[in-house]
Amino acid sequence: MSRFLSEQHKNLAPYVPGEQPQDMQYIKLNTNESPFPPAPAVVKAAAEEAGKCNLYSDPECRIVRERLARRYGVEIENVLLTNGSDEALNFIILAYGDQRHPFAFCDVTYGLYPVLCRLYHIPFTELPLRQDFSVDVEACMWTDAPLILANPNAPTSLALPRDTLEMIAASRPERLLAVDEAYVDFGGESCVPLVKKYDNLLVVQTFSKSRSLAGARLGYVIGSAALIAELDAIRCSLNPYNVNRMSLAAGAAALDENEWYMNNCRVIMENRQWTADRLKQLGFNVLDSRANFLFAGHPALTGEAVYKRLKARGILVRYFSVARTAPYVRITIGTMEQMRALSAAAEEILKEAQA
Amino acid sequence: MSRFLSEQHKNLAPYVPGEQPQDMQYIKLNTNESPFPPAPAVVKAAAEEAGKCNLYSDPECRIVRERLARRYGVEIENVLLTNGSDEALNFIILAYGDQRHPFAFCDVTYGLYPVLCRLYHIPFTELPLRQDFSVDVEACMWTDAPLILANPNAPTSLALPRDTLEMIAASRPERLLAVDEAYVDFGGESCVPLVKKYDNLLVVQTFSKSRSLAGARLGYVIGSAALIAELDAIRCSLNPYNVNRMSLAAGAAALDENEWYMNNCRVIMENRQWTADRLKQLGFNVLDSRANFLFAGHPALTGEAVYKRLKARGILVRYFSVARTAPYVRITIGTMEQMRALSAAAEEILKEAQA
Repeated sequence: MSRFLSEQHKNLAPYVPGEQPQDMQYIKLNTNESPFPPAPAVVKAAAEEAGKCNLYSDPECRIVRERLARRYGVEIENVLLTNGSDEALNFIILAYGDQRHPFAFCDVTYGLYPVLCRLYHIPFTELPLRQDFSVDVEACMWTDAPLILANPNAPTSLALPRDTLEMIAASRPERLLAVDEAYVDFGGESCVPLVKKYDNLLVVQTFSKSRSLAGARLGYVIGSAALIAELDAIRCSLNPYNVNRMSLAAGAAALDENEWYMNNCRVIMENRQWTADRLKQLGFNVLDSRANFLFAGHPALTGEAVYKRLKARGILVRYFSVARTAPYVRITIGTMEQMRALSAAAEEILKEAQA
Repeated sequence: MSRFLSEQHKNLAPYVPGEQPQDMQYIKLNTNESPFPPAPAVVKAAAEEAGKCNLYSDPECRIVRERLARRYGVEIENVLLTNGSDEALNFIILAYGDQRHPFAFCDVTYGLYPVLCRLYHIPFTELPLRQDFSVDVEACMWTDAPLILANPNAPTSLALPRDTLEMIAASRPERLLAVDEAYVDFGGESCVPLVKKYDNLLVVQTFSKSRSLAGARLGYVIGSAALIAELDAIRCSLNPYNVNRMSLAAGAAALDENEWYMNNCRVIMENRQWTADRLKQLGFNVLDSRANFLFAGHPALTGEAVYKRLKARGILVRYFSVARTAPYVRITIGTMEQMRALSAAAEEILKEAQA
């Protein structure tokens, strides 16, 4: 620690993203990216915009906000654009948390929530998942703390139906509920239709997964005009030009290519089914995924062992070393070719383990 | 204010960026963009990367950090990449300020510094510029507060020589000095050569202005490995994939196109000289600019009046309504065609004012 750092940061524990080897020699199933490139029209739109990058991007991001508003049947005032949905989470936690307003989220969920809270010294309550990794809905209904729920949850892959989230939103109208729907397009039910009815609800989504734009960093929040205006004030206090021109152009074009993306999502869901079936045949416990990844564990091997042995075979997956998740790995769903390679490698390492 | 917002934000006053009309009907001299597009090789590199956006960007941003390190004769550990230099300023203020460690900056300078401090409830001292808008170097040497100096300063356009900044850095080794060099390539002297000698020095730069990439959002910080590691911990706590793939590719390519950019800078400096001469002939007081903009005021008109009358003629400039800067406008230097249009319009509005 340098002699200049504010003492409040002396125990800072940043989020550790999944490995991103730049040499591409691995089958990358570790960071929940889409195996499919962006649609050709999206690539074209972004490429055309590159030549205009001497000019700032529109700080109001109107082109994408308008199209999202049209898509979801809301107004542009209900939509905020962010530099990836991580930035949306940052704005929400900074806006609605403080020392006297702790946040709440599940004990097993996206690791950035506690990291953001710790950075700002906002206390937080972790609501334990049930034994089967399902969300404790009663606990969610009872807590007074502003609540962030990843739905589907990560890394568990499990989803709650919209009705349940509505019940949680309705249970405490004085309490904020932010639903992080990064993975919703792979079989989940979005809460966006509920934002008109519940002014305590924010929905966070991203172009990263279902729309193949993880590398473009484009997320968004949908909620009441009052909440969005507050998040926008935070945004303009931090980085008024938070989204770059090329990503805005890519995002706008992506919204015109819905069929392409929904087709990709269908393929991923089919590949997910095939992979889950195969892993179960091999003795893995596989949770019922509504996301573009599987959460799977084998009685014969820890998550770390599966990770290491797959990596030795050129396949990257992710494991999380805290106690509850230690028996599992998180496996991103890729192409069938990648899934066949995964399946073959999993079979090999199990033979090896049982030999 | 919604019933959810943390009370600490109830008086939030976000930064207001210059107008960004999307219809392009104006001659835009209001946000200090380059009038020249990015080099063709840069556009090509960004466009090629667009097709790979299904994969996350490298969270370590190695491709650009390595090239910057080579360019400046430092190590990769001395370089941090950010989503525009605004994000760099955010990281610095969040890392090194707190309620007991107020920041210091000039009373007339980049408006984001006080906005960021207010957001985090970090107190700040404003060091008054001298009557001639020059920085009060003695006051900078004496303050114990971590200091941010824009050099060249905005909106004044004036620059301090490197020797003076070295004197300020050396005067208080226990005090952090961040030099914001967004405009340094237009005739200023960079402090990057000083970072090896002073471990209390951070230098912030950007690809926005001299490298024609305002719309790509790419900034960086150069400093000691210890300081950069701390800023990186803040970065990874907020948004580990803060820079997108296309902007990284554009930035890497831009560093290979130095001659193109330095030539553009020379043209802008020539156009600046021509414009300053013309405005002086028209009776404007024009400060001695080392930036890609002029700070100019006319005894016959307020800054707001100049702004409004130029806008009515299709030319956007910027004015700042606080007392000291009210007589002035900030005029971005564009192409000679744009500067001739500006000069003609300025002549017209003065005739009108004096009629």
